[in-house]
Amino acid sequence: MKRTVGHLADGREIIYFDADPDRTRTAVDTRDLPPQAPASEIRRDPLSGDWVAIAAHRQARTYKPPADQCPLCPSRPGHPTEIPESDYDVVVFGNQFPSFAQHIPGFDGTVDGIEQVPAGPARGQCEVVCFTSDHDSSFAQLSQDKARLVVDAWADRTAELAGLPGVEQVFCFENRGEEIGVTLHHPHGQIYAYPFVTPRTAKELATAERYLRERGTPVQGDVLAAERAGGQRVLVESEHWTAYVPAAARWPVEVHVVPHRQVPDIPALTGPERDDFAATYLDVLRRLDRLYDRRLPYVAGWHQAPVHTGRDAAWLRMEVFSVQRTADRLKYLAGSESGMAVWINDATPEQIAARLR
Amino acid sequence: MKRTVGHLADGREIIYFDADPDRTRTAVDTRDLPPQAPASEIRRDPLSGDWVAIAAHRQARTYKPPADQCPLCPSRPGHPTEIPESDYDVVVFGNQFPSFAQHIPGFDGTVDGIEQVPAGPARGQCEVVCFTSDHDSSFAQLSQDKARLVVDAWADRTAELAGLPGVEQVFCFENRGEEIGVTLHHPHGQIYAYPFVTPRTAKELATAERYLRERGTPVQGDVLAAERAGGQRVLVESEHWTAYVPAAARWPVEVHVVPHRQVPDIPALTGPERDDFAATYLDVLRRLDRLYDRRLPYVAGWHQAPVHTGRDAAWLRMEVFSVQRTADRLKYLAGSESGMAVWINDATPEQIAARLR
Repeated sequence: MKRTVGHLADGREIIYFDADPDRTRTAVDTRDLPPQAPASEIRRDPLSGDWVAIAAHRQARTYKPPADQCPLCPSRPGHPTEIPESDYDVVVFGNQFPSFAQHIPGFDGTVDGIEQVPAGPARGQCEVVCFTSDHDSSFAQLSQDKARLVVDAWADRTAELAGLPGVEQVFCFENRGEEIGVTLHHPHGQIYAYPFVTPRTAKELATAERYLRERGTPVQGDVLAAERAGGQRVLVESEHWTAYVPAAARWPVEVHVVPHRQVPDIPALTGPERDDFAATYLDVLRRLDRLYDRRLPYVAGWHQAPVHTGRDAAWLRMEVFSVQRTADRLKYLAGSESGMAVWINDATPEQIAARLR
Repeated sequence: MKRTVGHLADGREIIYFDADPDRTRTAVDTRDLPPQAPASEIRRDPLSGDWVAIAAHRQARTYKPPADQCPLCPSRPGHPTEIPESDYDVVVFGNQFPSFAQHIPGFDGTVDGIEQVPAGPARGQCEVVCFTSDHDSSFAQLSQDKARLVVDAWADRTAELAGLPGVEQVFCFENRGEEIGVTLHHPHGQIYAYPFVTPRTAKELATAERYLRERGTPVQGDVLAAERAGGQRVLVESEHWTAYVPAAARWPVEVHVVPHRQVPDIPALTGPERDDFAATYLDVLRRLDRLYDRRLPYVAGWHQAPVHTGRDAAWLRMEVFSVQRTADRLKYLAGSESGMAVWINDATPEQIAARLR
């Protein structure tokens, strides 16, 4: 694998990940881009204690451009895009409309002097990962080698972003499908480097730490062992990974892809574990697309340990879920889910697993 | 106000709330309905510790019937509906497809013997509240007297459901608009009686209890006082209530309607407080509909104290939010929100408040 770093016209970093160790990447971004001026803010909700990001400059972001103006395709003569090169394997660059960014003129204080609502600049980083230069492809259609290259890119970015000042958690994810609001159809994912431990991870870590204290074993390991032993909800079992529908699945389609060895994050995975993940995950994604004979809209996200806390109790997993509850009906997050955080699943995890097998 | 209790053909309770104290309700449900057989289950996610409801029988529920087959309109000759009477003011009855129900043949145990995943029957109650017999109306178009009657119905149901065995929290809410998955357009809300304290409320209570311990005052009261003093985000201030956009709003439209007096739940509100809420809330809802000159899709929900815990720290509020981020674009819950519970708001709370004023 070869890694080449460049810069876009407005100063954002771009990193090419190439399978060919001899590949050179020298193309220059010819666009006349205004300098980036992200101005996002984080505020802490005084009732829940959760941080919320306020990113008012993002209302103007790119919204469903026609395919011939896709900003994630390679550049063609007369059509410069976010990627100056005329082709690429896997490429990562800074998001043009970031919710979190390193250089935000900021303040640390409160909202209007209300001491119950601490606020500050939304320091962090938001990156885009293009999985392939083929606009019409999808992650599920990648070769295993290409999927492995994406894993290496995720590992690289996780390690580097974890080293930025103030970053507490790195989240690599893919939103796929208009049904969940995806505005660019080119196969791509995103990486968010948050300046706090996310509420979801904080809650899971508190549970994992309590369990570890009381039982002496990691909860994810015990659950994984039980799921593998029973097998009712297992979809794919490989040497290093098991993919299963969790027994308390929230979503009409939900799969956890879990490594057999306790590791905190993607950089900690060995080469064979990365290869095996690529094969296992592609198998899962292809099952998802066969479920309704269409490209399933989904959110896929890596649950990694925070950068500075909870690394002993955490256990890496990839979680993929979909809002598609039948071929033509969506699961909406309405009162119970959005208001009270109580998920109602209209399918049993056993039914979901049976359909995916 | 007059309250009349009846039963539907399958045994579900129906309760009429009438403004006229002399109104009688004697119509009989002539339908041949199969007996209810709800079979929902709750399972506890071992990673987060949250309960999830699995309600597989609900996939068959009524989905966007044509207006002339609306099950929430009064019955007409030849067209029996869920409401046997030929007219009504406000009516409440058991949901035909409940996620939580009292009589579920159940078990208390685990999923497949996996001790990390406790499970049990989803005991509780789900009710439907019809705000008006006028199919084409909306809550915002109710008279103040009618809105007050709805408040009385909410108070009645909260008090009664709180007395059912196993019920830990009562949630009165309204989902409005196809954008959030509403399948019946008749103006109505729902009431869920949960057999556990919801994750959202548990988290807010933990925050409120810590604050109360450390500061000696309720956090909601201090935030309310600060918002009223500053005024930047206040929309409506009446004798007993203030409606404001919270300083750390998660949604592109979000309003909290908060009583000036600390009360745990709707039954604790006095008559004048209920009247004043009706006026204040109608004012807020009408502002929401004027925002984009269309009926705004929204979720409106009462945050009430749990039935048995946290009642000293809790402070009632109505929370209304919308996924509509511009006149024609929606906010989707994608990776950051659904995966990590980090909300990114593309509008500042101050902008939202200014637009609603």
